[in-house]
Amino acid sequence: MQEAFSELLTYYQTIYDLGKAAAVLNWDRETYMPRGGTRARADQLSTLARLIHERVTSPKMGELLEKVLPWAREQGEDSFEYGVVRLLKRRYDRQVKVPADLVEAMSRAASKGHETWLLARKEKNFAPFAPALEELVRLRKDYADALGWEERRYDALLDQVEPGITSRWLDQFFAELREGLVPLVQAVSERRDRVKDDVLHQHWPEDKQWQLTLQAVEAIGYDLSRGRQDRSVHPFTTAFSPDDVRITTRVDEHFFSAAFFASLHEAGHALYGQGIPQKFYRTPLDGGSSGGVHESQSRMWENVVGRSLAFWEFFFPKLKEMFPSQTEGVTVEDWYRAVNKSQPSLIRVEADELTYNLHIMVRYELEQDLFADRLQVKDLPEAWNEKMKSYLGITPPDDLEGVLQDIHWSGGGFGSFPSYALGNVIAGQIWETVKEAQPGIEEEMRRGLFGTLLQWTREKIHRHGAQYDPLDLVQRATGKPLSTEPYLSYIRQKFSHLYGL
Amino acid sequence: MQEAFSELLTYYQTIYDLGKAAAVLNWDRETYMPRGGTRARADQLSTLARLIHERVTSPKMGELLEKVLPWAREQGEDSFEYGVVRLLKRRYDRQVKVPADLVEAMSRAASKGHETWLLARKEKNFAPFAPALEELVRLRKDYADALGWEERRYDALLDQVEPGITSRWLDQFFAELREGLVPLVQAVSERRDRVKDDVLHQHWPEDKQWQLTLQAVEAIGYDLSRGRQDRSVHPFTTAFSPDDVRITTRVDEHFFSAAFFASLHEAGHALYGQGIPQKFYRTPLDGGSSGGVHESQSRMWENVVGRSLAFWEFFFPKLKEMFPSQTEGVTVEDWYRAVNKSQPSLIRVEADELTYNLHIMVRYELEQDLFADRLQVKDLPEAWNEKMKSYLGITPPDDLEGVLQDIHWSGGGFGSFPSYALGNVIAGQIWETVKEAQPGIEEEMRRGLFGTLLQWTREKIHRHGAQYDPLDLVQRATGKPLSTEPYLSYIRQKFSHLYGL
Repeated sequence: MQEAFSELLTYYQTIYDLGKAAAVLNWDRETYMPRGGTRARADQLSTLARLIHERVTSPKMGELLEKVLPWAREQGEDSFEYGVVRLLKRRYDRQVKVPADLVEAMSRAASKGHETWLLARKEKNFAPFAPALEELVRLRKDYADALGWEERRYDALLDQVEPGITSRWLDQFFAELREGLVPLVQAVSERRDRVKDDVLHQHWPEDKQWQLTLQAVEAIGYDLSRGRQDRSVHPFTTAFSPDDVRITTRVDEHFFSAAFFASLHEAGHALYGQGIPQKFYRTPLDGGSSGGVHESQSRMWENVVGRSLAFWEFFFPKLKEMFPSQTEGVTVEDWYRAVNKSQPSLIRVEADELTYNLHIMVRYELEQDLFADRLQVKDLPEAWNEKMKSYLGITPPDDLEGVLQDIHWSGGGFGSFPSYALGNVIAGQIWETVKEAQPGIEEEMRRGLFGTLLQWTREKIHRHGAQYDPLDLVQRATGKPLSTEPYLSYIRQKFSHLYGL
Repeated sequence: MQEAFSELLTYYQTIYDLGKAAAVLNWDRETYMPRGGTRARADQLSTLARLIHERVTSPKMGELLEKVLPWAREQGEDSFEYGVVRLLKRRYDRQVKVPADLVEAMSRAASKGHETWLLARKEKNFAPFAPALEELVRLRKDYADALGWEERRYDALLDQVEPGITSRWLDQFFAELREGLVPLVQAVSERRDRVKDDVLHQHWPEDKQWQLTLQAVEAIGYDLSRGRQDRSVHPFTTAFSPDDVRITTRVDEHFFSAAFFASLHEAGHALYGQGIPQKFYRTPLDGGSSGGVHESQSRMWENVVGRSLAFWEFFFPKLKEMFPSQTEGVTVEDWYRAVNKSQPSLIRVEADELTYNLHIMVRYELEQDLFADRLQVKDLPEAWNEKMKSYLGITPPDDLEGVLQDIHWSGGGFGSFPSYALGNVIAGQIWETVKEAQPGIEEEMRRGLFGTLLQWTREKIHRHGAQYDPLDLVQRATGKPLSTEPYLSYIRQKFSHLYGL
């Protein structure tokens, strides 16, 4: 049986390598590819997607899985063997239901979607993107229907990103967040002048910002000999192996936070990727538990750490050294308050920690409506603007700052926004747990020592790769079921203090 | 039959796309990949190589080819159909003889070779590279033997790069070059002080060199919306499609020629790649005729154009504008003479136009010896240094400036150096033909107009993609069989004038 398992592992290596090759091609497309490369890149990616799909769903894969599954289960649910087989079986069972034509059509539509999204962004107008997005939604509906679902079509998509989590569960989750956050946002909004952030909106030369982001990501433990940072329109992290995990960021010369916190955010993802055990390399366990768990890592380093007073007590002198004139007369407390200023804003990735989840709710509800056929693609910009008005009280001046701002839909990535809110909440629970176990952790951070937090996540989260589903992993790591309470309590405390509530 | 041909084209698209994916992975490895990425990249590339080999040699490919070959031949030897089928049939016939294990082993050995080559370069010592190179030579011998050969094993390798050209043919070719060049090199060597190039050996800041190379490659017609330039240890060109053809260069802040002429050289390759007709995209015709024909394009733009007085009459003012202090008091004639200074030197890619072919002879003879079992890998550094002494009269101070300088062997690329000498000679014959047909061409170049030469090559060379083998293509393009005479006459005239012989 060991032999059949070895055969399965070897068979999977080709799938893994093809997936990583596709990841490199995607990375290049977002970072360096010249305009002319678009058509060929779409062809390359759809060919790779087709080959991967063929192998994942091949009769050979089905036979091997059937053969080894009972044996793998006997090894115990924590075993490497069961982890590998469970994940492959799930992928097989799902993908075997999806026709190869649909897979290739989705890959093509994603390339087309991405291309027209970039074009539409240039024109700040949703219209050129609409036909491609319609096609993407249509294909994703077919895809969800092929996978099958019980209560809502959206659940089929959700399950790909957050296995075990349903729309019904999320409705409750978002209701709790809404209840906890909306009054807080309201209260802060009434005292918005108590925190100033003008200091962030000065001229911050690009090359120095770049250097500073590199200093920061290295400080928290991102290993640049096994990674690198490049520029892209939309910051992202991609792993070609645990030893080549790359991040991207984008620089705004007139707003400090854009690059700095995007870099910290992506470095959080990258720490997860670099923390996957070597023995998971070229197996399905090389990856995160879910989008939400991944976001817990990125949002934790970006916000819980990167927007803490303790972090800036360590890092502020480095900032001052790099930007003496911009920070003249600014104290670390001023700076801490500035990077935490909360106000309704248009761009999700630049939103403050408090209003961020409202951006997610907008997207979650729109996706639910789209996939329940309650909303047409052509009506998206209007629906977007209405929801922004209702949750945040503001309306985008154009589609670039509205419905066109995120890359996700342009590649057919529906069902992945909830992960950001989940990430915030999981990070809150992790932070509560770590602080209880390591009361001196903030004192360490003040001295630039981030090893305790990193080691805790390495041990409790990263080490497991994709072995456990998100709610299971959170329970194992923190000893408690996932709850919105630690996050809400953290955020209430932080913003009450900042705004003197 | 048209249907079977369509099926063949579609079947080939997967092979093409996988090949291009591998090209992207190789490009990334040479340009941006962090150190940690090495192992995974080797895995990815060997998986892609294996999948390509499986498809190229599959029974399905064999059947389709057998079915369509007679029909394709009927379409005429100039037809698209025959071009496609001829190239695929040749590749099939060759590769079907090569065991899949050997293909994967070569891919792995290439990655290992590349890795240890970089390491050895750092140490300036051949020893760390020797074991990997031994393995590469051993595998390439197996490979040549699997392909089969008549007179010499080396011919099997040569035929992959220069179809239709044999060692015997090359021996004669190099004998003619030797006879023509050695006395000229001797004569120039005796008058070496007549040309000064101190001006090149000043401090040339990197960022400005970079801008200047971009100006130059755009001036000759390289389309940067369908390409880009990056940095790498060893300059190269790679095409992911006719609309995404990238070059790399390297910058030496203390020697002007390194970056500038490498960029022009690679842009020459890239013009060829960007000139392949769109209808050849995703077919085996998307590519050059041979390494030698490709080098004819790169060497022509680098030397015949880039080291001509006419070119510098156009470009010198731009140089002066970018580097006023470095070029103060320098005339265009001084500059023209400087960039053409001929003297025995150690590094091939920086060698002047006259001594360049001697560098190729060194490599050609060493490769012949290696593959005829007259030379052991461990004795390479010594043999290298002896040949350098004998042809160029100088000895490298270390292996970095000796046997470790070229990337080719590190990837198992044996049999490809003769293409450089062939390229020089083909460029000579093209230039003679174009000048006869367009007597005003140098006057145009003086005014920065390079369209006549580019159009001629587009029409006579690029347009055909890989349709014709090199000697055939040269005959068709220039109306004459390939001869060393035009090249020797060009070089004799140029250097006699420069050195007052």
